[in-house]
Amino acid sequence: MSSDRLMYLPLGGAGEIGMNCYVYGYGPRGKERLIVVDLGVTFPDMDGTPGVDLIFPDIAWLEERADRIDAIFITHAHEDHVGAVGHYWNRLKADVYARPFTANHARRKIEEQGGNPDAVEVVTAWPDQVQVGQFTVGFLPVSHSIPESSALVIDTPAGRIVHTGDFKLDETPVVGEPFDRAAWKDMAQGGVKALVCDSTNVFSLHPGRSEASVGPEIERLVADQTGMVVATTFASNIARVKTLAEAGQRAGRSVCLMGRAMRRMIEAGVQSGVLADFPKTVAPEDASQIPRENLMLIVTGSQGERRAASGQLSRGKYLGLEMAEGDLFLFSSKTIPGNERGVIRVINAFSEMGVDVIDDSSGMYHVSGHANRPDLQEMHALVKPKALIPMHGEHRHLRTHAKLGREAGIASIVAPNGTMVDLTEDVPQVADYVEAGRVYLDGSAYIGALDGVVRDRIRMALNGHVLVTAIIEEGGEPLGDPWCELSGLPEMGSSNAPLAEVLEEDLSQLLNRASNKTLADDEKLEAEFRKIVRQTAQTEIGKKPEVTVVVSRLS
Amino acid sequence: MSSDRLMYLPLGGAGEIGMNCYVYGYGPRGKERLIVVDLGVTFPDMDGTPGVDLIFPDIAWLEERADRIDAIFITHAHEDHVGAVGHYWNRLKADVYARPFTANHARRKIEEQGGNPDAVEVVTAWPDQVQVGQFTVGFLPVSHSIPESSALVIDTPAGRIVHTGDFKLDETPVVGEPFDRAAWKDMAQGGVKALVCDSTNVFSLHPGRSEASVGPEIERLVADQTGMVVATTFASNIARVKTLAEAGQRAGRSVCLMGRAMRRMIEAGVQSGVLADFPKTVAPEDASQIPRENLMLIVTGSQGERRAASGQLSRGKYLGLEMAEGDLFLFSSKTIPGNERGVIRVINAFSEMGVDVIDDSSGMYHVSGHANRPDLQEMHALVKPKALIPMHGEHRHLRTHAKLGREAGIASIVAPNGTMVDLTEDVPQVADYVEAGRVYLDGSAYIGALDGVVRDRIRMALNGHVLVTAIIEEGGEPLGDPWCELSGLPEMGSSNAPLAEVLEEDLSQLLNRASNKTLADDEKLEAEFRKIVRQTAQTEIGKKPEVTVVVSRLS
Repeated sequence: MSSDRLMYLPLGGAGEIGMNCYVYGYGPRGKERLIVVDLGVTFPDMDGTPGVDLIFPDIAWLEERADRIDAIFITHAHEDHVGAVGHYWNRLKADVYARPFTANHARRKIEEQGGNPDAVEVVTAWPDQVQVGQFTVGFLPVSHSIPESSALVIDTPAGRIVHTGDFKLDETPVVGEPFDRAAWKDMAQGGVKALVCDSTNVFSLHPGRSEASVGPEIERLVADQTGMVVATTFASNIARVKTLAEAGQRAGRSVCLMGRAMRRMIEAGVQSGVLADFPKTVAPEDASQIPRENLMLIVTGSQGERRAASGQLSRGKYLGLEMAEGDLFLFSSKTIPGNERGVIRVINAFSEMGVDVIDDSSGMYHVSGHANRPDLQEMHALVKPKALIPMHGEHRHLRTHAKLGREAGIASIVAPNGTMVDLTEDVPQVADYVEAGRVYLDGSAYIGALDGVVRDRIRMALNGHVLVTAIIEEGGEPLGDPWCELSGLPEMGSSNAPLAEVLEEDLSQLLNRASNKTLADDEKLEAEFRKIVRQTAQTEIGKKPEVTVVVSRLS
Repeated sequence: MSSDRLMYLPLGGAGEIGMNCYVYGYGPRGKERLIVVDLGVTFPDMDGTPGVDLIFPDIAWLEERADRIDAIFITHAHEDHVGAVGHYWNRLKADVYARPFTANHARRKIEEQGGNPDAVEVVTAWPDQVQVGQFTVGFLPVSHSIPESSALVIDTPAGRIVHTGDFKLDETPVVGEPFDRAAWKDMAQGGVKALVCDSTNVFSLHPGRSEASVGPEIERLVADQTGMVVATTFASNIARVKTLAEAGQRAGRSVCLMGRAMRRMIEAGVQSGVLADFPKTVAPEDASQIPRENLMLIVTGSQGERRAASGQLSRGKYLGLEMAEGDLFLFSSKTIPGNERGVIRVINAFSEMGVDVIDDSSGMYHVSGHANRPDLQEMHALVKPKALIPMHGEHRHLRTHAKLGREAGIASIVAPNGTMVDLTEDVPQVADYVEAGRVYLDGSAYIGALDGVVRDRIRMALNGHVLVTAIIEEGGEPLGDPWCELSGLPEMGSSNAPLAEVLEEDLSQLLNRASNKTLADDEKLEAEFRKIVRQTAQTEIGKKPEVTVVVSRLS
C-alpha cells in the first residue's frame, strides 16, 4: 500500500482554454488504475489551423493504457468538455458517467460515431456516489452556463480530490441548481487533498454577477423596442435562452428559436427535465407571418459564425425573415478572443441595414459562467484544500491562479498539459512529463498537429503555388518545354509578361543547358527547377512560391 | 459660378478603420479640381488576405483624374494615413503638403519607391494657410498619439470645411501641441459648412483621459519593480515612449530602445524638433552588460508581432538579453481587434518564463489617441457645423456618430467609401457612387482584391491541393498512368492506403475506360479528372481538395 501513488495528468485544457481532458490515477507506480475527466474539443482558426474541422487532445498516452481505465466522467455538456467523447470512445471503450442532460449529449455523440451509447451511465447528483475500482466519485452541483454542471468529488485511498469543472458561485442561476455553499462546506469538512480548479476568469477582479441579474435588464430593453428584436447567445446557455424568451413574452411578442443548435438544446433541456416552463414558441415557418413589432427571434451565431442564423440574417433573407431599419439585434454573449473579426463583420452588416446592435461592450446583457477572482478566493476558502492545481486556463491564467493560492497559504502548482503530478504527499510534486499534443479532425481524417499537413496549407496560402511539369525522353533528352501552372499568384510580373511564360522561358533555358547527369537525376532536376522558379518569381513578383515539380520519363 | 459644386468622396477609411483616403472637389460638375487628404494603408490578416504584404485603397477613380489633382495633404504620420504615399505618388504626381515630422516620413516613403521627395512641401501650422487652386488649406493642430497631428481647415468658394483627421481633446499631451479650444472656437467663428470627423471611439462613453494621466501610473509601477522592466507601445506614440523612458530614468534605470521602428521614430522626433529632452539611452549592444534591476527596455511589438522585439524576447534571447522570473512586461498599448491571438501568444510565452505581464485590461497604463463620445459631442458644439460627415470608422461607427450629430440638430450623413457627397447646399446630398475597393501589395506585385488570387490561396489553405498529370500519345492513347501529387492533405485515407495511390488507381481506371472523344478533349479530360479526384477524396478523407490537372500531349 505504501508504494501506491495518486497522480494527476492533464492532457488538454491546462495551458489553453478548450479540449479539456484530465486523468487521475491511483495504484502502484506506473500501474495506476485510471479515470478520465472530460473529453473535449477545441475549435480551429484560419491563422493556425486552416481547413481543420475540430481539434482534439492527443490521447496516445491514454490509448496505450486503455486497459487501465476504469471510467470516463463528464462534468457538463459544453463541447470543450464532451465534444471528443464520440470520436474517442471507440479507442478507450470505458464506461462514461454523466448526469442526465450531459448524458443525453454524450450518448448522441457516441452513437454518431458508431460507438455504443449504452456505455453512458446516468448518475444522480451528490450526495450519491459512483464507485469504480478504487475511486468513489460524486457529482456535486455547481452553477455554470449550462444545466447540470458538476464538480467531481473524487475519493481515493490517498484522500479526497475536488475537481471543480467549470463553475461560478451563483445562488440564482435561473435554470438548474443554485450554488449551495452549505453542501460544499459539508463536503470539504473531512479535509480535501487537492482542489483542481477552473481558472478562466482569474483576471476578472470584481465578484461575478448572477444569471438572474440579466433578466430585468433584458426585459427593459425589449419592452422599449418598436421593431423586430433578435437576440443571440450560446444555444447551450439554456438559462439565458429562457431569460430572453421570457423577456419577449412579457413584451407581448411571439418568440421564435432559429438555428438547429438552438432548437436542439431547448429540446434536450425539456426532455431531460432540466427546463420547465419554457415560453411557447412559434415555428420559423410561421414567424414571417407575424408583424415584426410582435416578434422576437432567438438565434444561433453569437460568435459571428457565417453559417449560423445571425450570419444568415446579416446577409439577407433567412427562412423568410429579413432585418430592417429600426430592428434591434442583441448579443447576449461574450465574444471569445479570436472571434472578434467575425462578430464585427455581422455588426457592420446589420449597421448597413439600419439595425441597432447592442454588443457585449456594455456588460449589461450578459454575465460570465465562470468564477471571477474573488469567487475563486471564496472557493479556496470554502474547500480549504491542502493543494491547489489550477486548470482550465492558458498558462497566464494557471500561473496567476497559483499565485493567488500561494497568497492564501495553499501549496499551488502550475501543471500544463503533459505534466504528471504526484499527489500522494501533501505537497504536490511533478513526477513526469508525457507527450501531450493535438490531433486534428480534417474532413474525416485524423492528422497529427506536427504532421506538416497544415504547415503546407499555410505555406501555400502565404506564398502561392507553382506546379512545374516536364517530360524527359528515354534517351534523357527533354521532350518539349516545361510547363507551369500557378495557383494563388498574380498573373503578371514586373517584366509585364505573364508570370507563367517568364517562368517557362527560364525553365526551358535551364533544361537546354542542363548536363546529361542532371537530366538523368530526378532529384537534381527538381531541385534546379525549384531554384529557378523561386529566383525568377522573386524577381518578377517579389515572392518565393511553393513549388511542386513532376518530371515524367518516357520509357 | 452657380453651377460649381463642392464635393466630398471617401475612397478609404469610411466603412473601416484603416487606409484613409478622402477627396474634396470644387468646380464645374464633373470637372471639379481635386485635393486628396491622406493616402494610407491597412494591414492584411490570415483570415482574409493571407500572404498579402499591405492593403491600399483602390485609387483608379483618382488616377483617371490625376490631371485635376491640385495637391495631396497628409494630416499625420500614422501608416493608415501616410503609408501609401510612397507607392501612389508616382501615379498621382501631385505636390504633397505636410508639417515637418509628417513630411519627414512622407519624403522617405516617396524616396523608397523611386519618386521625387522634393514634391513634399513642409508647411507651418494654423493660422498659416496654403493656397492650391481654389482651395486654401490650414493645418490646425489637434492632439493625437503622434506628434504634429492636424485637422485641415479647407476653405473653398462654397464655404469652410473642417476635416478633423485623427484627434482627441488633450490639453496636456506630453509631446506636441495641447488641444487649443480657443483657437478652434475662433476658427469656427465665421461658420463651418461641414465637419468631417473621426469616429473611432464613438462607442466609448466616458470622456477621454489625457496622455499626461498615464505618466504617474507608469512611474509608480516601474518604481516598484525589482527585476528587468520591458515596456511596449506603438513606436510612433512618441509621447508615450518619452513617458516610459522618463519613468525608467526616475527609477534609476538605464533606458534602452529596441526594435528598428522604435529607434527610427525617436530619431525622427529629435530631428524634426518635436521631441526635446528625451532621456539618455543605452545601445542594445551595451544593455546586456547592465544588471537587470537597473535596466528598462522599451520595445516594438505592442500587437504581438512575431518579428518585433517583444516577439523575439518571448521566444528567447534577443540582442543578448533574455527575460526571466521576476521581470515585468508592460503593454502600454491597446490590442487592435484581430491581433488578440498574437498578443495572447506573447503573454503566455512570458508567463512560462515566470515574467509578470500587465496587459491593456486594467486601462491604467494606456489612453486612446481618439476622442470618446462626449469629446465628439464637445467638438460638434465647438465647431457648430451645418453638416456632419463621420469618417475614420467602420459602418457601425459612422452610423452611430451620425445619430449623435442628428441628436444635436446637425444634418448628418453616413457616407461609406465610394459615396460622393454634394456639399454645395447646406444639407449634404449623395451625388453619386463610384468604385472604391482595395488593392493588395503582394511581394512586389499589385493585385486587385477581386482578382481571385487571394481567393485561390484561401481555398488551397482550406481544402488542400491535388495535382494530377497525365501524358497522352499522339494517337490519343494514354501513355502510362496518371500521377498525383498532394499538398496540404493527409497521406492516408479511410481505406488505409496512401491517398495518392487510391487517387491514381481511380484516375487510371477512368483513363482506361475513357472514350476517344474524351481523350481527345483536354477540357473534358480535365473535368473528369477533377470530378474523380474530388469524389474519391471525399470518400477517403471527407474533403474535396482543389485540383490542378496538366495533360501533356506528345506530338
